[in-house]
Amino acid sequence: MLDTLFRPRGVAVIGASRDETKLGFGVCRNLTGSGYAGAIHFVNPKTTEILGRPCYPSIAAVPDPVDLAVVIVPAAAVAETLHDCGRRGVKIAIVVSGGFGEGGPEGKALEEEIARIARQYGMRLVGPNCIGVIDTHTPVNTTFVKSVPERGDIAFVSQSGAICQAVIDWGTGMGFGFSRIASLGNQADVAEAEVLGALAEDPNTRVVTMYLEGVQDGSRFLDVMCGAAREKAVVALKVGRSAAGKRAVTSHTGALAGQEAAYDAAFDRTGVLRANNAEELFSWARALAWCPPMRGDRVAVLTTAGGPGVLAADGVEASGLRLATLSADTVATLHSFLPPQASFGNPVDMLASGGPREYILALQALLADPGVDAILAISVPPPIEDPLPIAQAIVTGAQSAAKPVVVAVMGEATVAEALRALRAARISDYRFPEHAASALGALRRRACWQSRPPFKPALFADVDRAAARARLNGAGAGWLGGVPAAEALSAYRIPGPREMLVRDEDEAARWARQLGYPVVLKVASPDIAHKSDVGGVALDLADEAEVRHAFQRVTESARRARPDARIEGATMQQMVLKGQEVIIGAVRDPQFGPLIMFGAGGIEVEGMRDVAFGLAPLSREEAEAMVDRTFAGRRLRGYRNIPPADRAAAIDALLRLAQFAADFPEVAEVEVNPLRVQLQGEGAVAIDVRIRVMEEHVHRAAG
Amino acid sequence: MLDTLFRPRGVAVIGASRDETKLGFGVCRNLTGSGYAGAIHFVNPKTTEILGRPCYPSIAAVPDPVDLAVVIVPAAAVAETLHDCGRRGVKIAIVVSGGFGEGGPEGKALEEEIARIARQYGMRLVGPNCIGVIDTHTPVNTTFVKSVPERGDIAFVSQSGAICQAVIDWGTGMGFGFSRIASLGNQADVAEAEVLGALAEDPNTRVVTMYLEGVQDGSRFLDVMCGAAREKAVVALKVGRSAAGKRAVTSHTGALAGQEAAYDAAFDRTGVLRANNAEELFSWARALAWCPPMRGDRVAVLTTAGGPGVLAADGVEASGLRLATLSADTVATLHSFLPPQASFGNPVDMLASGGPREYILALQALLADPGVDAILAISVPPPIEDPLPIAQAIVTGAQSAAKPVVVAVMGEATVAEALRALRAARISDYRFPEHAASALGALRRRACWQSRPPFKPALFADVDRAAARARLNGAGAGWLGGVPAAEALSAYRIPGPREMLVRDEDEAARWARQLGYPVVLKVASPDIAHKSDVGGVALDLADEAEVRHAFQRVTESARRARPDARIEGATMQQMVLKGQEVIIGAVRDPQFGPLIMFGAGGIEVEGMRDVAFGLAPLSREEAEAMVDRTFAGRRLRGYRNIPPADRAAAIDALLRLAQFAADFPEVAEVEVNPLRVQLQGEGAVAIDVRIRVMEEHVHRAAG
Repeated sequence: MLDTLFRPRGVAVIGASRDETKLGFGVCRNLTGSGYAGAIHFVNPKTTEILGRPCYPSIAAVPDPVDLAVVIVPAAAVAETLHDCGRRGVKIAIVVSGGFGEGGPEGKALEEEIARIARQYGMRLVGPNCIGVIDTHTPVNTTFVKSVPERGDIAFVSQSGAICQAVIDWGTGMGFGFSRIASLGNQADVAEAEVLGALAEDPNTRVVTMYLEGVQDGSRFLDVMCGAAREKAVVALKVGRSAAGKRAVTSHTGALAGQEAAYDAAFDRTGVLRANNAEELFSWARALAWCPPMRGDRVAVLTTAGGPGVLAADGVEASGLRLATLSADTVATLHSFLPPQASFGNPVDMLASGGPREYILALQALLADPGVDAILAISVPPPIEDPLPIAQAIVTGAQSAAKPVVVAVMGEATVAEALRALRAARISDYRFPEHAASALGALRRRACWQSRPPFKPALFADVDRAAARARLNGAGAGWLGGVPAAEALSAYRIPGPREMLVRDEDEAARWARQLGYPVVLKVASPDIAHKSDVGGVALDLADEAEVRHAFQRVTESARRARPDARIEGATMQQMVLKGQEVIIGAVRDPQFGPLIMFGAGGIEVEGMRDVAFGLAPLSREEAEAMVDRTFAGRRLRGYRNIPPADRAAAIDALLRLAQFAADFPEVAEVEVNPLRVQLQGEGAVAIDVRIRVMEEHVHRAAG
Repeated sequence: MLDTLFRPRGVAVIGASRDETKLGFGVCRNLTGSGYAGAIHFVNPKTTEILGRPCYPSIAAVPDPVDLAVVIVPAAAVAETLHDCGRRGVKIAIVVSGGFGEGGPEGKALEEEIARIARQYGMRLVGPNCIGVIDTHTPVNTTFVKSVPERGDIAFVSQSGAICQAVIDWGTGMGFGFSRIASLGNQADVAEAEVLGALAEDPNTRVVTMYLEGVQDGSRFLDVMCGAAREKAVVALKVGRSAAGKRAVTSHTGALAGQEAAYDAAFDRTGVLRANNAEELFSWARALAWCPPMRGDRVAVLTTAGGPGVLAADGVEASGLRLATLSADTVATLHSFLPPQASFGNPVDMLASGGPREYILALQALLADPGVDAILAISVPPPIEDPLPIAQAIVTGAQSAAKPVVVAVMGEATVAEALRALRAARISDYRFPEHAASALGALRRRACWQSRPPFKPALFADVDRAAARARLNGAGAGWLGGVPAAEALSAYRIPGPREMLVRDEDEAARWARQLGYPVVLKVASPDIAHKSDVGGVALDLADEAEVRHAFQRVTESARRARPDARIEGATMQQMVLKGQEVIIGAVRDPQFGPLIMFGAGGIEVEGMRDVAFGLAPLSREEAEAMVDRTFAGRRLRGYRNIPPADRAAAIDALLRLAQFAADFPEVAEVEVNPLRVQLQGEGAVAIDVRIRVMEEHVHRAAG
């Protein structure tokens, strides 16, 4: 359906203008100037001719075909115009006009009305408050933007018209072209996911880029993007980080999640590369469009001076890549044409005498080295000539290479011709070595994602959903802890500790024998929150005598300290000295559903921020990767004198928690802190479980 | 002395050339073209005239004055040329020629020889292997670089000639000028610290920038820069991060330090701003040169479209700043001239109708708001006109403002005129809002450093240096632990734990009473390393009965498990349940001396990397800042249900450790892990101390 947006048969401009200071003129100018081969119709009741073409008094008077209408009339007139379009059989209307939802509740109502009108005629609506679309291959340009993008293979979709304008101007100035550009405005009907799908299917597009303020429908976004990124590289500039962390949450998981963690997890699953700023978006996109895949992380740096080589080496490491170790063969080849004072390590420094011939030969040698996955070539401003011959040599040496070659052409004043030569050969150029390295990093992350197996949620058949539901239904809205919370999770086979209440010394001795020494005793009292403060805790009890003595001590200490407290006896647990503690949790994200956390547990989790996030349900690969992204998770394999823990059990618990969170939409937050991961083969135990049940679900269950 | 380098009376070019493909011609062209008003002398025995000026056969034949000689002759001829220069009374020789230390040991020997020759005549030597110097105000240009920098107020010093060339080309292309540029090459004589001093004293320089691969003399660098940054903003691009961590070290402190931590600490102390890449270096420098100081961290963003405003807001937060809250007065003023649909929060979005008049009025309103410390104004590519009128309006509104105003002119193809207008008015422009925000971040960090008190080391008079020396002298090279290490630090008043050896049950009971319950008992045996593995540890002993029973248990368990082991009894310590554990340590940096670390202790310190570094001796402010940079340090003030600890005692121990490390150059590493910081008023205890003594010092002490 949306293909029509980029390849319409017939376009009408409603609100076309002869006045060069009006946007309605800009659209007419761009549309006629774009080389669009279909029918172009201008509509304006006040004039009969614009740019030498006839102008119709209304859309009704426009002859066939007219798939697409571009609407630039005052907001108050848009509804009537859309009725006209609908009656005329227009398939898609782009509403450029502003004055809708962006301006307040009144405009929001008007926006809802125009969406309704479109639906009524089965017509699709782009905007309002947008700048339209461009397809440089059709070609068609419905925008009023002065700069006209060159034909290229990068598609761009934007939730901000101003960013669209800037991007077109950047592209024009920096010498890269676009395949399709779409400005979405307020998204009254057509939203980002659908357009992204259309861009991903476009045969002229190699890389899809986007400016995103948010997604409308998280699960649709995940569906579309999972498929899209298999075919095309996708890079997102997701803004709004600064608004993060404003959600009202009470768990560690919630406090740590922010709203960006869900986007990061969604991008990670779907292979969307997240650019950190507007500049990176297109730095990366150009390399992704023009370079072959990067099969490994080993980069060779080619330079004619030391300093730029060091900048590049720093950039390579900062981008998560490493410097390749050159083979003996490669070094021998380099020796055959470089002076002996050159550096034959990596960076390869050919010295200032390195000219076009040396660049060609060195590139060939490095490309042939099986230990090299990509090349970062540097052109330093030459003291005598200009950098064009070097750029031409790089083109000769790198063109049709099966490995990525990116170029840092250092300088600005004297580089224009060199850049033109590189761009014509589809070789990505950067002014700074660090940016070139960053682009290689993006290529590598893309290749890593492509080599992952397709997403498949890990779901366990042995969970007892009914038992868990019974536990949740038994509770009201708000936090649920203690036994019911523990039992809800143990129904999903996340077990709690072996723990029992002992009422006297003899019972304590009996149970201790059964549990196995050493054990821990804590006074049991509903009235005492901080048991250690009243001398109510005894650790590391190693035999029966110690247990008997400790039972007396903890109960008596507590009685002395709090004569009013009800003392029920003591709870006894095995003392697990060698386990490791982690936290697992989930918090519901408004767009993407349950956001799952794994990390370092204990009360310090928020301070340390040693945590990783994913979306529920998780795949096994995702759970593994989450564990390995944190220090607490890597430590499960053993660390220094800490023995390996039951990492498999921790991953199992994480997957089961994700399944639990996905199964029960009434669970707003769930947190196991700590999850004690015992020695290998001994499992993981949920020591403390808390679940927050949402009010609306309780009401619904009750109603 | 070095002022002569930038303001010479008379310059001779030795190795001048008529051949336009030679560097020796480039120098002649630049020198004569630079407008240099002093005497210019060309020296080349093979010609009599270059560029219409007479050419002398030798430096001896050159008439007075001749302060400076630029030497571009083959490496083999440099020594003889320098003899000639020395005899002729040349004050400074710039050796452009390569073929010295950069090429291997032979070249290194030649380099040492030419440095010797220069010293012999009291002549200073810049280079070899450099591209010389430029002063655009003198004016003089001794380089061969084709691009010629404009006059400006940014000085640049570089340890890479190629970076110098690139920087000149960037500056020329991006429209900012330089005051002085110096390329240092191999630094056979003149090194970075001395030149930085000369740049800082230059009245035409407002900002000093540098490309640094390393410093030659750390303490000299610290001396020079502490003074320099008081007067001028200083920004460094310190490269070589990727080579970090290669030092051979065995402590946590050493493993975590890398070599970059010492540079970071040195820059922090001296107010040098560290740019992350070449682009940032000059992004920041322009704002530092052109903006007034930024008195607080509250930024107002002014835009005509939402998306760019969000990019700017993200950038503001990412740069360590925050969005200002506008006063009611400001909002009322904005309402008086903006449409009601505009956004009056921050970012202020004037909507697309915001033209030159609105920019001027809004800038004035925001500048007048006492809650605004800086303004980030955005110019979106206008759909109809070009951005020049907006830029002119920003100039009108912002010129002579007492607060920083930076501008993001988004776009590239249509912005040239707008940029020229802004630059002419000394207003910093950026293509991307995030870069503009980053520059404000640098302005703010500069202002924060300027408000710090001058560095004053915190030194304690109550330390017993002789006692500590006695302990160190008693040991050989290598690691020193146990009692002697603890005693060396306790001589510096970093106390160890109260701990004693008890030989029988009665003694145990007696000491426990004296220490206060609860206590810990560990079997004492020189043969048993892992005491808990043999049941040799008893924790949390709360009364005499438990102590007596535990003494029997731990000694008997150990005897059973290891019948061969010598059992001396048990060591007893107070069980401190409520202290917090941190690590403090020092490792000797080759350039900057002892590098001091504070952070989260325990065996996980390397995994968590929750650490901060400083240079010894520390000032009290530095120690406080180090503690507050880490979570482990912030937690000392109390965190959730962890009570506040004796933070003052931890800072005291950190300062004393730094003093100890500074006092004993034979100490290669010292580490206290953990330092147990007890409850407020109860001090901090060095639980485990290890000191590594360097071999050469032991030999020296022995020899």
